[in-house]
This record gives sequence, C-alpha cells and structure tokens, in this order.
Amino acid sequence: MRIALDAMGGDFAPDSIVQGAILASHDLPEDAEIVLIGQEDVVRECLQKHGATSSRISIVPASQVIQMGEHPTKALTQKPDSSISKGYQLLKLKQIDAFCSAGNTGAMLVGAMFSVKAVEGVFRPASAGFVPKLDGGTGIFLDVGANAECKPEVLDQFGKLGSIYAQYVLGISNPKVGLMNLGEEEGKGTVTLQAAHQLLKNNPSLNFIGNIEGRDLFNDKADVIICDGFIGNVILKLSESIYDILLSKNIVDPYFDKFNYEAVGGSPILGINGNAIIGHGVSSPTATCNMLHLAYKMAKSGITEQIQKEFST
Amino acid sequence: MRIALDAMGGDFAPDSIVQGAILASHDLPEDAEIVLIGQEDVVRECLQKHGATSSRISIVPASQVIQMGEHPTKALTQKPDSSISKGYQLLKLKQIDAFCSAGNTGAMLVGAMFSVKAVEGVFRPASAGFVPKLDGGTGIFLDVGANAECKPEVLDQFGKLGSIYAQYVLGISNPKVGLMNLGEEEGKGTVTLQAAHQLLKNNPSLNFIGNIEGRDLFNDKADVIICDGFIGNVILKLSESIYDILLSKNIVDPYFDKFNYEAVGGSPILGINGNAIIGHGVSSPTATCNMLHLAYKMAKSGITEQIQKEFST
Repeated sequence: MRIALDAMGGDFAPDSIVQGAILASHDLPEDAEIVLIGQEDVVRECLQKHGATSSRISIVPASQVIQMGEHPTKALTQKPDSSISKGYQLLKLKQIDAFCSAGNTGAMLVGAMFSVKAVEGVFRPASAGFVPKLDGGTGIFLDVGANAECKPEVLDQFGKLGSIYAQYVLGISNPKVGLMNLGEEEGKGTVTLQAAHQLLKNNPSLNFIGNIEGRDLFNDKADVIICDGFIGNVILKLSESIYDILLSKNIVDPYFDKFNYEAVGGSPILGINGNAIIGHGVSSPTATCNMLHLAYKMAKSGITEQIQKEFST
Repeated sequence: MRIALDAMGGDFAPDSIVQGAILASHDLPEDAEIVLIGQEDVVRECLQKHGATSSRISIVPASQVIQMGEHPTKALTQKPDSSISKGYQLLKLKQIDAFCSAGNTGAMLVGAMFSVKAVEGVFRPASAGFVPKLDGGTGIFLDVGANAECKPEVLDQFGKLGSIYAQYVLGISNPKVGLMNLGEEEGKGTVTLQAAHQLLKNNPSLNFIGNIEGRDLFNDKADVIICDGFIGNVILKLSESIYDILLSKNIVDPYFDKFNYEAVGGSPILGINGNAIIGHGVSSPTATCNMLHLAYKMAKSGITEQIQKEFST
C-alpha cells in the first residue's frame, strides 16, 4: 500500500509535512509505505533534519512547486513537474494507492479532473468533511467547497457518494441521509432543494430521512449530510472556529476535541478514479499524520472501486 | 411606548408568553406598556394564574389563533381576527410601537408584507440574527430565513439595513460589513456572490471590508455579516445547538452563554414600516421577556424611521 504525500504543499511545507510523514511511519499498519513527492534535495535534507530513519519513507522527485495562491489551471499547465501534477500522474498509473496534499486546494481539485478524472456517471466529484456525532460516531457531510452551487441531480448523487463512504470507510450500515435545509417540511428551501428532496426521496439506493436543519448537524438524525459546497464550507470553517474559541478559553472536552481539524486530517475528494485527500493549508505534523491514516483507511476500504461499481450499474 | 405581544404564538403559549410579559413588566423602563394580544378570557385567566398585578399590562382581544403549522397566506386570509393579524393592524395604525410574536414565522413575515409593507425602496425585508463577538460586542447577520435565495442587489441592501441597525440599535459607529463567502478573495463564491461583492464594494454608504469566511463569524472582522436566508438560518440553528451541547456537558462560560437563544429574544424584521420581532417557537418566559426588551430598544432607537429616511434618499 503506497500512500503519497505532497511534501511541498501547505503553509508550513516541507517541514510540517515531512514531520507528519515521520510520525505516520511509526504507527501506520505494516503494509503501508509513504511516498514523499517534492524537490529531492529539500525533502532529503528535511528528513535528515528531523532524524528520519524509516525505510518506509521514499522520495519521488518533482522539481516544481505550485504555490498556495496560484491559479489552479494555469499552474497545472505551466508546472507539469510540480508535486501535485506528479502525484496525480502516479495515481493515474496506479503506482500509488492514495495521494494527499495540504497545498493549493484548487489545483488538487482541477488536477483530479485533468488526470484520474471523474468516475463515469458522476456529474461532479465532491469534497467531504466529517462531523463528530454526539453519540460517539462520525458523520460525513458533502460538499465542503468543491462545488459552490449544485443542481438537484448533483445533490442527489452526493447522497450516494456519502452513503458509500459511510458504509465502506466509516462502517455504518444503511446510513441515514439528510438534506441540509431551513426546515424539516418537504416543501422548504430553495427551488433547487425542493427538487433535490424529491430526487432523494425517490432514490431506491438511499436511506433518505428527509430534511435536517443546522441544529441537527451533531445529533444522530443523519449519518450523511447533503449540502452544496458553499454551505458545507461555511459549516466546516465555523465548526473549526468553535474548537479554537474553546481552546482559547481553556475549555477541554473529549467531544469538542474532535472539532480540531488536526484530528480529521483532511477532506477526501469523492467520485474520482483514485483516492485523493486535500489537507488544511495550515496542516501541522499531527494533521499530516492523520491525513496519511485517513488515506490508508480509504485505500484499504476499496471505496473508490466501490463508487466505480455502484455508479456503473 | 406600547410594545405588543402575541399571547397565543409559540409552542408554549399562552403560558410562557404571559409569564414573559409579567417578567418584563417588572424591569422594562418606566415609559413601556405591554399589550397582550389574544383570546381575552384565556389571557386574563393566564395572567391571574401567574399572579400578574401590573397595571402596565393590558389586553387587546383577538378571537382567532394561527397555529404553528398553518399555511401563512391562507391562515392570514381566513383569520382576520387572529392575534398576528390584529398585531399588524395595530402596528399599521401606529397604536402600538412594536409587535412581537413567537408564533408562526411565515405568518409573521407574510403579515408584515400585507399590512405595514416593505419600506419604499427596500426590495426584500430581512430577518436578522445576532452573534456574540469574541471582543465582547454584538454582531448582526442577515438574512436568517426570510429569503432563502437572494439576488446581488438584495444582498447589497442587507448591508445597508444591517449597518443602520448596528449604528442605531447596537451603537456601533461606522460598522464593518462583511460578505459571508468561502474564501476571502474577491472572485470567490457563486456568480451571485461575486456580483454582490462588486455592488457592496462600490456602495459609498457602506464600510465594506470584503468577504469573510465561516471562521470569522465570531471574530472582530465584521460587525454586519451579509448572507442569504438559507445560510443564515443554518448558522443560527447550528450556533444554538452548540450552546445546547455545551450545556448538556455542564460546560458553562459567559461567552457561550450568549449563544443561548433566550438571551437574544428574537429576530427583528428589518425593512418594513414598523418594528416587528419574530421569537423562537420554543420561547420560554425569559426569552419572551428579552424579546420585549429588544422591541423596546428598537422602538426607542427609531430604527424604522431611520431605515425609511435612508432608503428614501
């Protein structure tokens, strides 16, 4: 199992990223290898600096770096030997089983569409976020930013993508799917949401439980929460800020600890032909380590193959 | 100053509502009178039951009741002597200075448009929510549910409505206006938000500071946060649920106490020819009391007259 990591991506790359890889090299399951993609000298020096000795970490050279603020499409075209381009090339060739980057989010999304491409039948791949449930479980919500606006049929597919993830990665059987809305009644919300509600309701492959509201994000009403990338992004960042506020007030609680972005590691892109994860720009060593664990779990579960299978029928 | 309250509206009406009126009768400023609108016998009995003696509370009879689940337009047409219809009639005739109800939200919004109507020049009145700021102040965000979808020019006007409220009721001079988006850069978000950004940027009457993100809701970047009613509603309910979760875990903190819906009292409808506030369906006596205080503050500030003035020029 080869998990690749963009050593050059993130506000604190390569230091934090390489440190995260070293952390993960100590506790990832035995069959996992970590592939660091980046400028060879820089990465090697960084590994030495942090005392890496593990034979589980290897380097794939990539001479170019896509910066955080660059225009995604332009950067990918102009930098074919960047760590992000290289990662997706390897993913496409199946030389790696997963690719993670805390770098330029846009380039990660566009890169996926250019290289491994969307799974046949998937209208729009989605980036997913996770929500700690009060009952101790984990919920998934999607999209969290890849698609600011979504048509009803796209939202309907998010239900399926999220359900497959919930089943195969989170281990939830018959996951409950809820549509984020401003009221529980069927006729609530925008025209798009009303149409999405009907599609979801009549989708035989889903356990659709209806609309949910902002107050239901953390309770056990739904395991899979469907929303457009705009609302998902606001929810994600708002939840992260709650954790920061609690921390600043020295309020420590095991439940709210799960709001820490570091605990999750990153956002999987679902509905593409490969396992890819986008990490937080500020990714710390701990966050990076957890991103690698998440990638391992995804690759091991066969989630991508399952999505390919379920969308082909 | 006559503040009217729908005695029949809310999940726990008339009991909680009447108790809230009694609470407020003890601590509202001297020039405030409370007008309870509802079925006279029921309200009188309820006042007696709770030992009301204040001469500051009077009753205006309304024989009908609009239930929480009723269709707003139909209910208002079929029940002209309902407490909500009556409240707006009195508001229109300027026999009261403010009208509050924890009843049917849709009927409160439609009722406003039927009776006192939108201020000339205002495209869409907005319902507003409040956010406790980490620096100790209060921010206002709008819309929180009256308009699920908003055109750019409507979002631009929300900036003005919110700024006037921030100045005249919250006492913030030159309030900073932020547009809720999924990134700080000007070109981020949906086509609607990109257009709204340009309108706001070029609006000379506003102190527009640009896009803000979900993580900025509670910090001091913006005093006025513009969003459509869909996202505002999700944010409002999500924030309320955070308070409930903290409470369930016995985590008490003065900052998070402000997340309690009871502390705020309700959502003002801004941009109509009168002061109207929609309370939470579950309004307790404390929430009802605080809704009356909020109504008093709004009426005293002359916010409606200020909105009329600023939109007429």
